[in-house]
Parts: sequence; C-alpha cells; structure tokens
Amino acid sequence: MGIFIERVEAVRSMMRAHGWDAVVISGCDPHSSEYSAPRWHQIAWVSGYTGEGDLVITADHCGVWTDSRYFILASRELPAAGAELHRTRVPDEESIPRWLSRHFEGWGEVTVAVDGLSQTAGSVAEIQAALGDRCTIADVPDMLDPIWTDRPAIPQTPIITLGTEQVGWSRLQKISWIRKWLREKGHDAILLTALDEIAWMLNVRGQDVEYNPVVMSYLLVTSDSVMWFVRKGPLAPGDSETQDSFEELLADGVDIEDYSDIGGTLSRIVDGDYIRSLFVDPSTLNYDLYKILKASASDASVTSGTSPVALRKAVKNEVEIEGMREAHYEDGIAMECFLHWLETSVQADELVTERDAADMLHEFRSRIEGFRGESFETISAYGANAALPHYVTPEDDSAELLPRGLYLNDSGGQFLFGTTDITRTVPLGPCTPLEREDYTLVLKGHIDLAKAIFPKGSAGCQIDAIARQPLWNSMRNFGHGTGHGVGFYLGVHEGPMQIRQNFSRQPVVAGMITSDEPGLYREGQSGVRHENLLLAVDAGTNEFGSWMRFETLTLCHFDTSIVVKELLDPSEIEWLNRYNARVYETLSPRLPSDVAEWLREKTLPI
Amino acid sequence: MGIFIERVEAVRSMMRAHGWDAVVISGCDPHSSEYSAPRWHQIAWVSGYTGEGDLVITADHCGVWTDSRYFILASRELPAAGAELHRTRVPDEESIPRWLSRHFEGWGEVTVAVDGLSQTAGSVAEIQAALGDRCTIADVPDMLDPIWTDRPAIPQTPIITLGTEQVGWSRLQKISWIRKWLREKGHDAILLTALDEIAWMLNVRGQDVEYNPVVMSYLLVTSDSVMWFVRKGPLAPGDSETQDSFEELLADGVDIEDYSDIGGTLSRIVDGDYIRSLFVDPSTLNYDLYKILKASASDASVTSGTSPVALRKAVKNEVEIEGMREAHYEDGIAMECFLHWLETSVQADELVTERDAADMLHEFRSRIEGFRGESFETISAYGANAALPHYVTPEDDSAELLPRGLYLNDSGGQFLFGTTDITRTVPLGPCTPLEREDYTLVLKGHIDLAKAIFPKGSAGCQIDAIARQPLWNSMRNFGHGTGHGVGFYLGVHEGPMQIRQNFSRQPVVAGMITSDEPGLYREGQSGVRHENLLLAVDAGTNEFGSWMRFETLTLCHFDTSIVVKELLDPSEIEWLNRYNARVYETLSPRLPSDVAEWLREKTLPI
Repeated sequence: MGIFIERVEAVRSMMRAHGWDAVVISGCDPHSSEYSAPRWHQIAWVSGYTGEGDLVITADHCGVWTDSRYFILASRELPAAGAELHRTRVPDEESIPRWLSRHFEGWGEVTVAVDGLSQTAGSVAEIQAALGDRCTIADVPDMLDPIWTDRPAIPQTPIITLGTEQVGWSRLQKISWIRKWLREKGHDAILLTALDEIAWMLNVRGQDVEYNPVVMSYLLVTSDSVMWFVRKGPLAPGDSETQDSFEELLADGVDIEDYSDIGGTLSRIVDGDYIRSLFVDPSTLNYDLYKILKASASDASVTSGTSPVALRKAVKNEVEIEGMREAHYEDGIAMECFLHWLETSVQADELVTERDAADMLHEFRSRIEGFRGESFETISAYGANAALPHYVTPEDDSAELLPRGLYLNDSGGQFLFGTTDITRTVPLGPCTPLEREDYTLVLKGHIDLAKAIFPKGSAGCQIDAIARQPLWNSMRNFGHGTGHGVGFYLGVHEGPMQIRQNFSRQPVVAGMITSDEPGLYREGQSGVRHENLLLAVDAGTNEFGSWMRFETLTLCHFDTSIVVKELLDPSEIEWLNRYNARVYETLSPRLPSDVAEWLREKTLPI
Repeated sequence: MGIFIERVEAVRSMMRAHGWDAVVISGCDPHSSEYSAPRWHQIAWVSGYTGEGDLVITADHCGVWTDSRYFILASRELPAAGAELHRTRVPDEESIPRWLSRHFEGWGEVTVAVDGLSQTAGSVAEIQAALGDRCTIADVPDMLDPIWTDRPAIPQTPIITLGTEQVGWSRLQKISWIRKWLREKGHDAILLTALDEIAWMLNVRGQDVEYNPVVMSYLLVTSDSVMWFVRKGPLAPGDSETQDSFEELLADGVDIEDYSDIGGTLSRIVDGDYIRSLFVDPSTLNYDLYKILKASASDASVTSGTSPVALRKAVKNEVEIEGMREAHYEDGIAMECFLHWLETSVQADELVTERDAADMLHEFRSRIEGFRGESFETISAYGANAALPHYVTPEDDSAELLPRGLYLNDSGGQFLFGTTDITRTVPLGPCTPLEREDYTLVLKGHIDLAKAIFPKGSAGCQIDAIARQPLWNSMRNFGHGTGHGVGFYLGVHEGPMQIRQNFSRQPVVAGMITSDEPGLYREGQSGVRHENLLLAVDAGTNEFGSWMRFETLTLCHFDTSIVVKELLDPSEIEWLNRYNARVYETLSPRLPSDVAEWLREKTLPI
C-alpha cells in the first residue's frame, strides 16, 4: 500500500474514532493567503496532489476538487491516493456542498469535520446550508496534527522594518489614517487578517511565505491600542533584526502579542465593553476566529466588509512609485543580460534547458542589491510547454531549448524597494507564420492597453476589451485576466482592481500598478504572452471629462524580429519603437558593452 | 395670473380640500411607456413644462425634477408655473423622497397624494421609506380629472393584426411558449403590462401612442385562458379593422375584456383558488394594480421579475429579420433621395431650414408602401444645434441650412414589416479641421464596433469600449449609450440588451438588433453622430470558443469627402469602401437615375 493510500486511511481512522462522516481539507493557511507555507500543504501531504484545490474524504470516497488549470496535474497525481477528480468551473460542476448533500442523501445526522484555521466562515456556511439542520460541523483546528507527526511548524523568519524613505508613509501615519476611518464608520476597532495588509500597515516584512515577504500574524487596531499577534519568540540565534523590529514597533506604541493569543484576546475584549463595534474582512477571516467572535460578541456588533487597507495599499504613494521605478530599472538590466545570454547560448548550439534558463535569470537578479527572491515561481517554457499559462518548469529533465520557435519566460523579483513581474516571449530561431501572427496580435493588444486613454472612474472590465480586440477580431482569445494589481515589495497579485472580463466596479485609480499581459495559447504547439507593469496616472481634464492613462514601468525590449508589421497601425508601431528606444537609452549605460551593443541592434526602429 | 399659475393653485385647492400635504405627478401612462399619449401629459398641462421629469407640489413649493438633457428647456418653461428646477443625475442630487423627507422634517402626520396609475410600486415605496410611518400615501387614480375638464380620453385607435408571414411566430405559438415558461417556473399566470410586450404576444398593432404602434391594454395569460383588457368599444364608425382583429383573436381563444375591468378581474381571480401564483414585472406594473394584487392575493403568491417576453421579443426570428432587411432597403432609398435633395438644394443656395429637411425626409418615407409613421421625432439639426443630442427641431423658425459645416439627421420609420433608426451627419460645404477630425473619429468608432468579433456571452458593457476607444484616445467622449435594442415594428428603443458603460449582464444574443451610434458634441459649435442598426449573428466556434459578430442592416452611404484618411487603419478603410459599395449596388437599381449617378460618385472608394 502506497504512502498516500496509507495517509487517507489514517484520516479515516480518525474519522471513525471521532464519529466524523466526512472531512474537508483545504491547502489554505489561517489567512487565506494565495501562497501558503509548507505547514498548510495539507492536501499534498495526505494525497500527494500538489496543485490547488480542496480534498474531501468520506468512508468510501476520496476526491479532489480543482479547476482546468490543474486537470492534467491531478490526473497524474491523484491515483497515488486512490482519489477522484471533481472538476470545478465547468458547466456541470458539482460543488463540495452539493456533492456532500447528494452523498449523504437519506442519512440521518451527518458530522462534517473541518480545520477551522484553513476555512473561511463562508465556505463552512455553504456546507451547513447544503446539508441543513441534520449536519453538525466539527471544527478541529490543526486536525491533521495527530497523524502528521513531522508537520512543519508555523514559520518564523526574521522580520525587518521599512522606513519612510522606502515606503513614504510611516506606520504612525497609517495607524492614524485607519483610526480616522474607524471613527468615520463608527467602529471601535478593526481586525486585519490578510498578511499583506498587516505588512503594509506596520511597514514590516518577513519571509514566512514563499515569494511573499509577509509575517504570519494578526493585527488589531482600536482607538487607543495596536496589538500585533505574531510569533514573538524565542527568536533564532543571531536574529537581531527581529528584535530590533519589535523594539521599533514598541516605540511606536505597537504591542507585540503572541500569535497564538489572538483567539483568547478577542474573546476577552470584544464584549460590548471595550470593543462595541469591530470591523472584519470575511474574505481572509478564518472560521475559527469567526466562531470565537460570534461566541464573544454578545453585546458587541461585528461588521463584515472589504478591508479599507486593500484599496489604500493598492494606490501607491510617490516614494513607493519611485521604488517601483528603481526595481524595474534594476530588473531590466537583469532581463536584458539574461535575454542576451539566452540568444547567444542557443545560437551557439549550447545545451540550455528551461531550468537552466530560469536558473540563469535568477543568477542575474541575485546580483541586484536589495534582491529578496522571486516574486513567484518562474515560468520558463519552451515550445508547446508555453501553451500552459501556469506551466511549472520541472527541476530535472526540463525541455531543451532549440534554435527555432518561441520561448516564454514569466518571472519577477522581490526587492527591498519594489516588486516586478514581467513576461517576454522570444523567438529562438525561425518561427512559423502562425507563431509570428500570434506574437504580433498579442503585442498589438498589449500596446493598445498600454497607450490607452480612458475616462476616470472606468473599471477594469470596462477597458479589458481594449487589449483583447486585436485577438477577438481574428477569433482568438486567452482564458486568463489581462491585468492584476501588484504590491510594493508585497504580493505580486493584489486587489482590489483587476483588468478582466469578470464584472467588478472597482475603478482604476491613479497610483495603482497593474500588469498588462494578454496571451495566446495553442495546445501542443506554442504559447505567447507579453507582460509589462503599468502605473495608472491622471491624464488631465477637458470639456469631455477627466481622463486616465498608463505609464509603463517595465524596462525590457520587445523583440521585433518576428513582428508582422502590417498587423500594427502607425500609432502602435510608434509606441513600439519609442518604447524600445527608451529601454535602450535608459539601460545601456549600465549594461556590459556587448549586451549594450546587442540591445542597440535589438531596439532599432521597425 | 397666468394659466399655469392658476392650474398649480387649482391643484393646491384640491390638496386643501382632501388634506393632502404634497402631490407627486408624473408624465407616465399606466404602463410606464417611454412615450405616453396626451392624456398623460399631466406635467405639461399643470405647469407648461414639456420635457421629461416629475412634478411635486406642496402648499408653498412647486418643483420639477429632471436631468441635464432638459435643464435648458426647464429653465425656459418653469417660470410660467412659478416652478423650481431640481437637477437629477448630478453629484449633489436630492431625490423626491429625500426632498419630501427634508421638507416635512419636524411635521407630524404627512399625506402624499399620487396618481397610482402613473406611478410604479417602486417609486411609491421609496417615498414611503423616506418619510417613514408618519406618511400616508393617498392613491388617487386620475387625480387631475376634477380640474382638467377637457382631459383627453384614453386613446382608442384602430387595431390591426400581423400574420405569421409578417412575424414568423403565430400568437398561438407565443401563448404556448409562455405557458411552457409558466409551467417551468411553477406559476399559474403572468400579467403583462408593457404595451410592446402585449403587442408582440398577440401579434397586434395600434396607434395609441405616438411613434409606438401599440394598443393600450393589459394581458393576463393563465394555463387555460388568455384575457386581453383593451378599449373594446364602441368602435369608431367605419373601424372594421378592429372588429376583424377582435374576431381573429377570439377565434384563437383570446377573450376580449374591457380595459377598465383589469382591476376587478384581478381582485376576483387572484385568490389562491384559480390563480395561486402570478408573475408580474414591477418595472411596468403601476401602483394601482400593485395595490389591488396586494389586497387580493391573500392565499396566492405574486412573484416579481423581468418579464420573459422582453428577452424573447428582442431575439428576432428569420421572418422578422427578413422584414427588417426590407425596411432598411426601403428606408435606404428614402434616405438617399433625401440626402441627394439636401445637397443639391443647399448647394443651389435654396432656402432650406431644419424643419424643411425633416418634412422632406418624411415625404420620401411616406412614399414607401407600408409606412406607418416615424419611429420617433426626427432630429434635424444644423451646426451648433446638433451639439444637443436630444435637439427638438422647432416647428417654426428653425435654423436655415448654410453651405458650410455639418448637418445631423437622426430619424426612423415604422413599417408594417419593421422599424428603422438611422443618423447621418453630412457636410453641407467646407468644414473646419476639428469638424473633420471629430467626424472621422466617430466614424472610426462606429466601424470598429460594426466589424467587431467578440466572444459569445459578452454583455454590452464589455464591448462598449470598442466604439469609444478611438475617441477616448484623443480625450473625447459622448454622454449617451452606444447602442440600444430596436423592436420589430414596435418600440425603437427596447431592452434588455444595451451597449453602454452601465453594468448589465445581459449578453448580446444572435437575432438581437442594436443601434451603433457613437457621437461627439461640442457645445455651441457642432455635433456628429453616425448610426446604423446592426443584427447580431453567430460567427462560429473554434478552439478559442464561440464567437459573435454584427451584420449591418442599414443601407445608406457614409459621406467620405471630409474623412481624414490617416486616422483610419486599412481594415477600417476597407470596411468603409465595402459598405459604401454595397449600398450603391443594392439601392441604385431602384433609385432615380440622377440620384443613382450622384450616389455612384459618393460611394467611390477612398
């Protein structure tokens, strides 16, 4: 019996011992983070399945719910646990609550066990609603601990602070701002549960989660106190950074509480006496805390809504924007050195794999002072592999790059002064007419959005068609969003603004940073994506209203050698030539002379 | 004392006699029709104000609430009644309910009188909610009758029926379809209150409302009966059409009931015995009927929602589409004869006014067999007058057309076989560079939407940017929607699909007909609008999904003489040349030879 079959059986033993009819296991950390630390790779530990999704185990069924991005991965990994794939985001989708309801039809009482730290109140409520009164939810925090004996601990990495010269706004200013917001809305306190919001509020950064420089913690701000619940000790030997950070925070009036004390503190102070009205954001509040609040707040009110920090954080101030510009300048140097190395190596018939390319780019980025690691896992994909928008480059035996067709690299860096995210698709040699056409039409869409002017107040879904129209007109499309928000030395994906077809009323606001990344994917053949980060800026007011436009932050040339010029209009060609010229002028003084000379030729106008 | 001051005082006398503290008067008919018959021009009768809006009278205040389209008209007409303008759709708007709430602050009991026939339940509920429990609503149907002694009667015009060779689907098929819908949704009956939905269901047309070929009526469909509540007699002498129509309907099992019996019938049969579950659309259900239903339906349920007829009617069948094509062919002949006459006359220095032009176009349309009148009031606007998107061409002393600048004509016809709506903006002589640029950019936006391909399922707000982008990119915009649905020999404006910035999830469906009418307006200078009607059609399915595109129905050339060619890309120029060539090829065989020759030159490729 394989290890994963054994572990599923171990879960079933627990179920029998406790009288649970089903367990629902998610891979979420207690903060609904996009990426979670290894401690919360619960599904992978139980079943061996390493993609996103949810795992449900009953006495006679083991199933993983996930969407089309992971169908191939799931079909490869699920057999090891004897698990079945349940497809989500498909027309005949059967959600977990509905599946449970059908599965237990005709039963009497049903007990469903969840790890309340890894579930939001909303997801548990859906299960309860689908099964009705006969269903009891057993909330079992850290449910897997008894069988996962070597489960990793809650991460605790060194914590640093950022000064106003780095982030513009001091934490005292931010605390004062949120207290003003609380007064205006009539609340006594706000509980922040999203890790990037807490890092932003306190001007702290850690390395608790891969790619995301955050600190596992909760933050409670009242009118006269700030309580940060964080893994406070004992610190690793020699970790003076964290100690210094704690002292700096204490000096600013931030109480350092232990991470595990959040529940106890909440149940003590949210009682209608000290805190009469508490604001929480249900999208990142876990079920465990929700239950504690529900039980404690007999005389107090708990208001749910979108955290005001999400929007405030998305609108960058001038210091942050300056840092982002610097990050993109440094990142551009690394990218151009990388692309020069790539082209030279492949053309010299050297053996270069997708993994080698990812490693070499990492090497170039590592030379930048202030580099803190990638902002997400680098996608280094050649040929047909690039047709998977979320391709995971294997550690071993990744594909070899050949001097023909397209290579796609989607990567980014975390720097003390900003975050980058860039995709370049480059020809490694001769390309087919279709590859050239796809390449050009995607670039056309990218350019159209990059140079667009649009009315102030426009939401992302109202301008998304601008990037898609060139593809739509030749009956091509891509299945992901056109743009996502990007944090300042924080998450590479952040809300609340997004440029995509999905309806959202959040307008594009000056100071927001968004990606512009149309793509095109032909299964088994090739993939194209062109991505820059754009800063939203005011474009003035005239008799027709107030206007917004974008300023491109990313500095890295677009290869023009396979552009089908007739598919671009004069204004698009002008944009492309100007952009490439700007990249050369800005970066060349810092580039090694051979790279600079290569770039000069690469950026000649077409 | 002027007549309108006297009438406001007459209303106040009624108020004192009945103890009403305020009256709210709307210009709506009992069906919330876009256009209402003279009987419901209540605001104009009381106050002399002829625009859209609402009138509120209290003991010491008389106010009209309306939006920016009518500010100029209101400022001219309101003084006659001593009325004040309350601006709506502006940032500091104070709605009627809020104004009433503030006006009566500190009062005890307040009675607000409304004419429940001219109000929806929703608008009355808002007043009630704003004023709270202290407010009593006095529902007074036909409230003005005691003082408006010569008030026009409910219109009663000849009713005709359309056969399946005209509309494709027989009324029996439609009744059977809606009964299937009722069964699927679990309702016993549906009450249709929108006049165009009733006309569509029964394949009847009348002339009760200007521009809209509808019949004042209600329609109640149950599982075993169809009751049409209509002005059934006595008929005008010699009106055999209506008699024939009634007989045809009776033969199809449609009971002809009197219009005034709707309330009594509803209160009798919606009682949980015969009708247990009734479906109504609150957007066109008046407050009077709403109250009757609320009072009667003690054991029955009344479900509110969007009428299924709205969507079904918007998706035209093949016979309707064929009729619309014929309508556009005939309308194109009239338009080309008109434009030829216009250019010839103005260039010959003949005296032509805006009104003359509108009359001449009417004359050309009148020659078409099956013409039943305009589909809305013709906008015939020269120079700066065209800067008002809703310009009303005066009957007398309208502006003279001079051989320079731009003339705009927005008009349409009702035909037995379809409905048209077209705007052409034409140069009457030399134009300024700005006029030429505006003209070209609006045309570019029009073309981009007309030739767009987009994913099946896209809503109007997701493709609206396609028509606006060329204007946005030069920081220009227009303040109205890009496209509205058009009925088949019915309302020239119909839902549920619209192409505009406002959020709506209704997708574009194959068979829908929409206008494509971007514009640009410079106050005091000029206005441009280019409008064709488009038919949405399937564009096939490929590996990237299913696709939609538009097919242009309107047949009338676009003047190319002032096009700034450099502002168009090759695909736009190709569309323009092909469209103009198609117009010439299709229409010229039927045109007088001088017009055909003129059109040949007008449609030469650029």
